[in-house]
Amino acid sequence: MIDPRSYLAEHRAAHLEELFRLLRIPSVSAVAAHRSDVRMAAQAFMDLMRRAGLERVELHETAGHPVVYGEHLKKPGHPTVLVYGHYDVQPPEPLELWHSPPFEPEVRDGKIFARGATDDKGQVTMHLLVAQAMIGQGILPVNLKFLIEGEEEIGSLHLADFVARHKDLLSADYVVISDSTMLRQGVPALCVGLRGLAGLELRLRTGAHDLHSGNFGGAVPNAAHALVELLATLHDRDGRVAVDGFYDGVADLTPAERRTFSALPITDREFLDQAGAYSLYGESGRTTLERVWTRPTLELNGIWSGFTGEGRKTVIPCEAGAKITCRLVPHQDPQQVIAAVTHHLRQHCPDSAQLEVLDAGGVPAFLAPPGHPALRAAEQALREAYGHEPDVIRMGGSIPVVTAFQELLGLPTLLMGFGLPDENLHAPDEHFALENFAKGMLAIWRFWQIAD
Amino acid sequence: MIDPRSYLAEHRAAHLEELFRLLRIPSVSAVAAHRSDVRMAAQAFMDLMRRAGLERVELHETAGHPVVYGEHLKKPGHPTVLVYGHYDVQPPEPLELWHSPPFEPEVRDGKIFARGATDDKGQVTMHLLVAQAMIGQGILPVNLKFLIEGEEEIGSLHLADFVARHKDLLSADYVVISDSTMLRQGVPALCVGLRGLAGLELRLRTGAHDLHSGNFGGAVPNAAHALVELLATLHDRDGRVAVDGFYDGVADLTPAERRTFSALPITDREFLDQAGAYSLYGESGRTTLERVWTRPTLELNGIWSGFTGEGRKTVIPCEAGAKITCRLVPHQDPQQVIAAVTHHLRQHCPDSAQLEVLDAGGVPAFLAPPGHPALRAAEQALREAYGHEPDVIRMGGSIPVVTAFQELLGLPTLLMGFGLPDENLHAPDEHFALENFAKGMLAIWRFWQIAD
Repeated sequence: MIDPRSYLAEHRAAHLEELFRLLRIPSVSAVAAHRSDVRMAAQAFMDLMRRAGLERVELHETAGHPVVYGEHLKKPGHPTVLVYGHYDVQPPEPLELWHSPPFEPEVRDGKIFARGATDDKGQVTMHLLVAQAMIGQGILPVNLKFLIEGEEEIGSLHLADFVARHKDLLSADYVVISDSTMLRQGVPALCVGLRGLAGLELRLRTGAHDLHSGNFGGAVPNAAHALVELLATLHDRDGRVAVDGFYDGVADLTPAERRTFSALPITDREFLDQAGAYSLYGESGRTTLERVWTRPTLELNGIWSGFTGEGRKTVIPCEAGAKITCRLVPHQDPQQVIAAVTHHLRQHCPDSAQLEVLDAGGVPAFLAPPGHPALRAAEQALREAYGHEPDVIRMGGSIPVVTAFQELLGLPTLLMGFGLPDENLHAPDEHFALENFAKGMLAIWRFWQIAD
Repeated sequence: MIDPRSYLAEHRAAHLEELFRLLRIPSVSAVAAHRSDVRMAAQAFMDLMRRAGLERVELHETAGHPVVYGEHLKKPGHPTVLVYGHYDVQPPEPLELWHSPPFEPEVRDGKIFARGATDDKGQVTMHLLVAQAMIGQGILPVNLKFLIEGEEEIGSLHLADFVARHKDLLSADYVVISDSTMLRQGVPALCVGLRGLAGLELRLRTGAHDLHSGNFGGAVPNAAHALVELLATLHDRDGRVAVDGFYDGVADLTPAERRTFSALPITDREFLDQAGAYSLYGESGRTTLERVWTRPTLELNGIWSGFTGEGRKTVIPCEAGAKITCRLVPHQDPQQVIAAVTHHLRQHCPDSAQLEVLDAGGVPAFLAPPGHPALRAAEQALREAYGHEPDVIRMGGSIPVVTAFQELLGLPTLLMGFGLPDENLHAPDEHFALENFAKGMLAIWRFWQIAD
């Protein structure tokens, strides 16, 4: 049997070319103007599936962006693995902060730079390329199903519905997802927990139109003032979210969990370097990993009001807005959180403003079932590929579909991520380390052999 | 001698055509891309000056946009009036709120709609058209100098310097400016006080780049949070500016001033209707006119941070900013106010953020010298043109150059405005009432006759 390391080394250039073809497509799911690009990315993934030797390669329409499916079911009696990924990406803005254009992938310093390089085109493509290698050589020991969606970055709006309507198509033994990060370069990671997400958008108005600050200033409300006053009430002095009911049901860590976290060799200094932030900040009395993995948050993702262009405009803005997302932990219900924040905003909105709050939906947090055999197989494959014991970690981010697989298909999910925390996902200069592109494919290859 | 009313009625269409030619030029002084448009407006005003019969029509370069000058000095021994105006305009954004394009003037419902219609192209052009009429007929009884600048909307950055270097050119008996508003339709107004202005811009950063709210949220600072926390400290619960030293030197109104204000027939209901605001708002214990004419303010003109586009972006912004202007009253020094606000911002900025504060300059407030003969002449001319006793008012806005005329030339300024408070200057759908375009020209005509 061919050695996977040699095979992967020999095909490195061809594999990168496959990935670059996908990264060139600006499949920004959040922006209507990119609708046809999103569809083009779906087609490109189907092309790769067909070249990989998958069968029943299908595009499934949803009420939003389409879902792509392909399978290889030639091993009756052996495990069936459902691989999930997404072909959509975050908006690339602000464009001026990229050092190379977001949709013109290039390799610099051993890293692939492009929007989607690590989140998630780069990672899901590794599974397809390993499938192509093993199917091509007739050595794939398991059954595979691929489910690749186009709405992960906008909350997987229609995927749960799709899963519910295709339970037979998607039946499997477990799900594997590579859409997460390792803790540190060189050490693989298995993730057993994710935070959930809840989103809101608010707009407030203080009048029919903007006003001249000379003729009216001092006697009429200013929407920007009302907004900052309102938003400043959302946190208290200790960094906690000051919304009644926000922490309802949130459990404190067990002593064992605290020990596991504190044993991980990651320091605040390293975390800060990865973040590029000027300082750490958060709830008092919690470590950094506890804050990011086990505590809920409320973040302003964007705020706006009035004149923000070049120069001066002496205007009193009549309109202001903000986008908010909360990260959730186990036992928090997204709808209850949205209701609690909405209630808080209404209670604290200055009388001078009219407030509109939009519910942008959400998903609950996730914890993996401890001791599942696929977790052990993955641990071994990762150990072999990297020559290092994997970190067992949680993640602060959210993968909405994990809940759907659990609740609708009864399937456990294995989160085997090959990204790194400083790869700027959702930010300018997103990138993916070539080393993990290579070792990740090796780990996937070994995983399918061991899992059988 | 020809009757001014008949003459003006006969030439109405031609006068509007002259004005429309000027309004079509997007001379937005705040935006670098409009630099050549600003210059084009200067040239267009010079063309009109020449057609009006003025002499020594000159364009004077400054370090910014040019100043335009023209004169008619054929009456030795008679008064010389310096007419000041500006040919630059505010940015027209947000464009989508205009009902007709801002630089395609049109008449609807007896109003001229265009950016600059009332502020200030429409008003300064009236003086030029009356000069043209009286010079053409050989009946102009006074000497006239016109000084029209291109930087009023960005704080008249270089005009004081120009005035200081051209004291002989600009020598006169007094200045007349039409760049302000009447209190109410049908009743002319003479303005005896203006507020000053002081501007700042602040930017704060919490890190090197935006971060993923899942991977980092809860453990790093958020620039939008820092901004709203900081800006929320600028006012207290009573609507007062909560900056130490902000009110230093501000005098309370005398009982006589209070009586004058309360005698003016303007109600809060009317003011609110003009504003289009949902409610009144301001310092407790003050009337609306006191708030707008005699009290200093601090307004957020714009705020920004993070993602403000369509859809969701789960980002922790690393950068946020705000534009601030203060309206000042007599005895406040703009530089002291800027220093006080800057100090407050530095004192209250969260530790997690790095703050940069830019001084955007300012001008002091103005009060006219009571009892000046030109004030009496203007009152009579306005009374005749409108058939109504003029209101003697103040204005909440600022005309930076008034201070320069006072301090550099020793000239008193007469503020004879023909705008209305609801004409959306600095906002979408700016307009100017045809009735005041006509009666205003009549008043100017009579004023020059009476003032002689």
